[in-house]
Order: sequence, then structure tokens, then C-alpha cells
Amino acid sequence: MNAQPHLVLVVHSGADATPRLVEALPEHPQLSIFDLAASRGDGIFETYSVARGTPHAVEAHLTRFERSARMLDLPLPDRDVWREGVLAIAERLADHDEAWVRTVLSRGIEGHTLPTGWVYGAPSPDFRSERTVGLRVALLDRGYRSDVASTSPWLLTGAKTLSYAVNRAAVREAHRRGADDVVFVSSDGFLLEGPTSTLVVRHGDRLSTPPADFGILLGTTQSDLFAAAGDWGLSAHVEPLTAEQLRNADAAWLVSSVRHAAPIRAVDDVDLAVDSALTATMNGFLNARRT
Amino acid sequence: MNAQPHLVLVVHSGADATPRLVEALPEHPQLSIFDLAASRGDGIFETYSVARGTPHAVEAHLTRFERSARMLDLPLPDRDVWREGVLAIAERLADHDEAWVRTVLSRGIEGHTLPTGWVYGAPSPDFRSERTVGLRVALLDRGYRSDVASTSPWLLTGAKTLSYAVNRAAVREAHRRGADDVVFVSSDGFLLEGPTSTLVVRHGDRLSTPPADFGILLGTTQSDLFAAAGDWGLSAHVEPLTAEQLRNADAAWLVSSVRHAAPIRAVDDVDLAVDSALTATMNGFLNARRT
Repeated sequence: MNAQPHLVLVVHSGADATPRLVEALPEHPQLSIFDLAASRGDGIFETYSVARGTPHAVEAHLTRFERSARMLDLPLPDRDVWREGVLAIAERLADHDEAWVRTVLSRGIEGHTLPTGWVYGAPSPDFRSERTVGLRVALLDRGYRSDVASTSPWLLTGAKTLSYAVNRAAVREAHRRGADDVVFVSSDGFLLEGPTSTLVVRHGDRLSTPPADFGILLGTTQSDLFAAAGDWGLSAHVEPLTAEQLRNADAAWLVSSVRHAAPIRAVDDVDLAVDSALTATMNGFLNARRT
Repeated sequence: MNAQPHLVLVVHSGADATPRLVEALPEHPQLSIFDLAASRGDGIFETYSVARGTPHAVEAHLTRFERSARMLDLPLPDRDVWREGVLAIAERLADHDEAWVRTVLSRGIEGHTLPTGWVYGAPSPDFRSERTVGLRVALLDRGYRSDVASTSPWLLTGAKTLSYAVNRAAVREAHRRGADDVVFVSSDGFLLEGPTSTLVVRHGDRLSTPPADFGILLGTTQSDLFAAAGDWGLSAHVEPLTAEQLRNADAAWLVSSVRHAAPIRAVDDVDLAVDSALTATMNGFLNARRT
């Protein structure tokens, strides 16, 4: 854990009652080992970036949280209570240039019917190296075809669940290969996403990202970047991408809520140019967002 | 949760120190929300069946626990301490004909280096209906090819991880289809396993189960049944199976540690015969095991 975590619990007391925010001490245990978050990774989460106390893309994260809840047949999160929790924790981090806040909704104690929830946050690690020097990425098979989101929704591709063991194993595999991060590839050869990030590629003045219906997460950071792309003289496209198109790109990034835009400087053993100017523009824009 | 849970924590205090078993109250919170079990499903587990205080297949479960730890790059569990924890919780359940004990090893608090562990157990639910009337199963796509365990070990197929959200979503999908449980199918058309069970099929006097190198869990219950099959005049084979071979089977079961052998009475809309005599023989044998 980073220093100075802050925490509130989102306590559900009845199926129709509005959940309450309850203060909790981060250094004391808060969770039962019977909670399905801990025994089954059965829940969802969102991670927000926070600049001087202001969380970014709040409504987009809340919407994605609701979407994940629907995909897992979880009770729909009470939008107002979760927003209040995010704002409360973010405010306690107002002394920091960059921080993060995470919301977690679990299915709750096994055999009971009420979900468990919590919101916590802390100052962000220093990402200067990732944002300037950039990342070496390994291309790793995700095992799934690009159409599983429509053929097999029970695989939960595109939901932000607590079952992240594969994402973490993939990053360990990347480290074994001398890389820093991963770009997953579908079994039919399309680029997907990073374990905790969205892929953005530039060819000339064209930015591209893979389609969400390939079973990847709708990127809140990528979405904000694409909305701003016109201001930077770039067009923005959602389209299938191959490994060859990444290796031949003029630049590429893994973008995510807290690390923001991290340039890709190598794809397996192939070096990629880092577009320092555009990266700095993107990260300046991302950190300056005020909604 | 079932009534009367019992719990000990497996407390790790140093990289080389033997972990200690520490009593804990099941009704109080024991876990930090910063534990990677709760935030990332990043850990492993085993579930043992217990008959009148005696846990079954202890060494096989401990070996599989070690194997899962290796696949997730977790510290290797101290076999003696975990066995002691299993025996301690099992003993408290000696008044019950059937109970279960679960061991969980998580990667621990994010940013720290020590894992978290616990062992808990409770009396088993009543499985008479599942074991006699049997189960309707839905065949559901697992998304993966049958060779991913060798091509893509970071997908953790064959490891018993805490990231079970997909397994639980598949069972909810089965319920929506009017079925009770699931048999997963690989993207190249081979039968795999249930979300929490191993598939066993009978054609004449031949029992079959799919190969573990298809990325499925090594079944401790299936393994004990196969070792006993000769006594029942049956031969036992590990071999690829198709949906057609399941629909044409003389009988089939989903076998698992706690529910034991549950006959399959329908595959999607196709009825399957329930072999009541062999099912009773199997379940009598499983519950009578004394190791």
C-alpha cells in the first residue's frame, strides 16, 4: 500500500434502503473472510484519478461501474451514494497533485443477500519514468476470440471485476520477458488492451483504439483523449488493430486512469518511437480535467 | 454462510518463518480491504470434504494447493502448517456426517511481501437431491482453446484461484437456461469441466474424464474414483470427450470434493439416464474414505 490510505465503507442494510457511508480505520480489518470479494473475486471496481482533490471522469466511471454491476447481476449501485464516497475520499487527498480513489462493490457475505462496498484512496506513485521514458510491452495471448463478448457474455469480458488473477499473472510474465507491461492479443490475432489500460496507437495524424465489442473495457481515459484529439489536429478512430499495425505505428500508448498516458517504447523486441511532445500534451490535458 | 463456521488464520510473520495458526472469531472482520484476495482475487484455495471429523484426500489437496501456488508465483505453502489447520477445523466438525474445510492463501496486503492465509469450515448443505435426482447441465463456451495451458500459462487454467467471477457467472447463465450446473466446452469443441467440478462419463464399462492438459483442474475426487473403478468392474480413461459423446453416454457425473458424485440427468435439452446404483456406490465409497 501507498502511504496515507483513506477509507469509507458503503454499508448496505436492506434491499431497498439507500446504503450509508461509514468511516473505517484503514489499519484495522474491515472485511469478513466469508465475503465473496475475498473468496471468489466476485465483485466489481473502478479506479479514479484525483488532481488536488478533484476526481476525474466521475460520471463515466459511475456509468461503467453500473454497467459492470449489470454484467455480473449485482444490485445496481446507488449512484449518488458512490459519488459522495468518491468525492469524500478525493477531498482528503487535496494536498496531493495526483492521487487515486477506488470503489469496490462485492456480492457480499456468502449466503446473504446484501452486497458489501467500500471506497478508498491514496496519493499516486511517481509515474514520471513511465510517462517519459515509456514502457516495454510484451504481446500476450488472451486466449479468447475477439467475438466472445457477444457469443459468451458469462466470460465477463468488458466487465471490471475483482477477478484479476490473470491480469496480474500476465504482468509477471511480461517482467520475466524483460518487459514492463502487456498488450493482450485475441486468439484470432487482434490487439485488445493492457491488463489495466487501454491501447491507443498513432499513425500520422490518426489515433486508433480497438473496439470495445472485442471484449475489452470501455476506457474512460481513452474516451476523454479521443474527445480532445481534434484540438491537437488528430482524428480518432475505433477500429481493429493487429500486432503489425502496432509495430509500424508512429507512436503508441497504454492509457489508464491513474498512470494516464504511458508511451510504448518497445513491442517485444521491436523498438517504437516515443512521441514526447504529444505524450506531454495528453498528460497535461488529463491532469487538468476538472470533471 | 452455513451455520457454525469455524476459522483459524494462517499468519505469516516473515519470509522464512513458519506461519502460525491463530484463532479468529468468524463473526468479526478478519481481513483488510487492502488484501489482494479482496481487491484482485489474487490467491488460491482448496476445499476438502470432511466425514465425522476426517478430511478426505488431504495429501492430494495439499499437493494441488502447492501446484496452484507455483502457477501464481506465490510463496510455497508450508505443508505441515496447512495440514494442521485443516485437521484442526475438521476436528471441530466431528459431530457432522458431512462437512467441508477450505484453505485460502492470498498474496497478502498490496505493496507488502507476506501472504495472508486462513482455514475455515462448516457442515455441508444437504446434497441428497443433487446425488439422486441429479443435475441438468448447460454446455457453455469457456472461450479458450484446449491447448492454452501449454501455450499461455499466464491464463492460469488448471490453477485453483480466487478469481472465480466467471465460474459464478456461468452458473447464473445455467440457471437462466433452466439448468442447475455447467459443463464448459473449449473453443475447439472439447468438453472441459464444471465451474467447481470434474466431468466423468460412462460408456458401457468405460469411465472417461477429459485430460488435465486441456487447462482443467486435476480432480482429487475423480482421481480417487478412478483408482477404485477396477473394483466396480470398470476401466478408467483420461481422454478427449465431445458434446456428442456426453449426450450418447450411458451415464455421466459432475464430481467434486463436497457434493461428491452428482449424476447428470440432462445435457441442455437432451435427457440422460441416471445410473442410481453406480452413483450410490461412488458416493458410499467417497464418504467412507479415511485418508
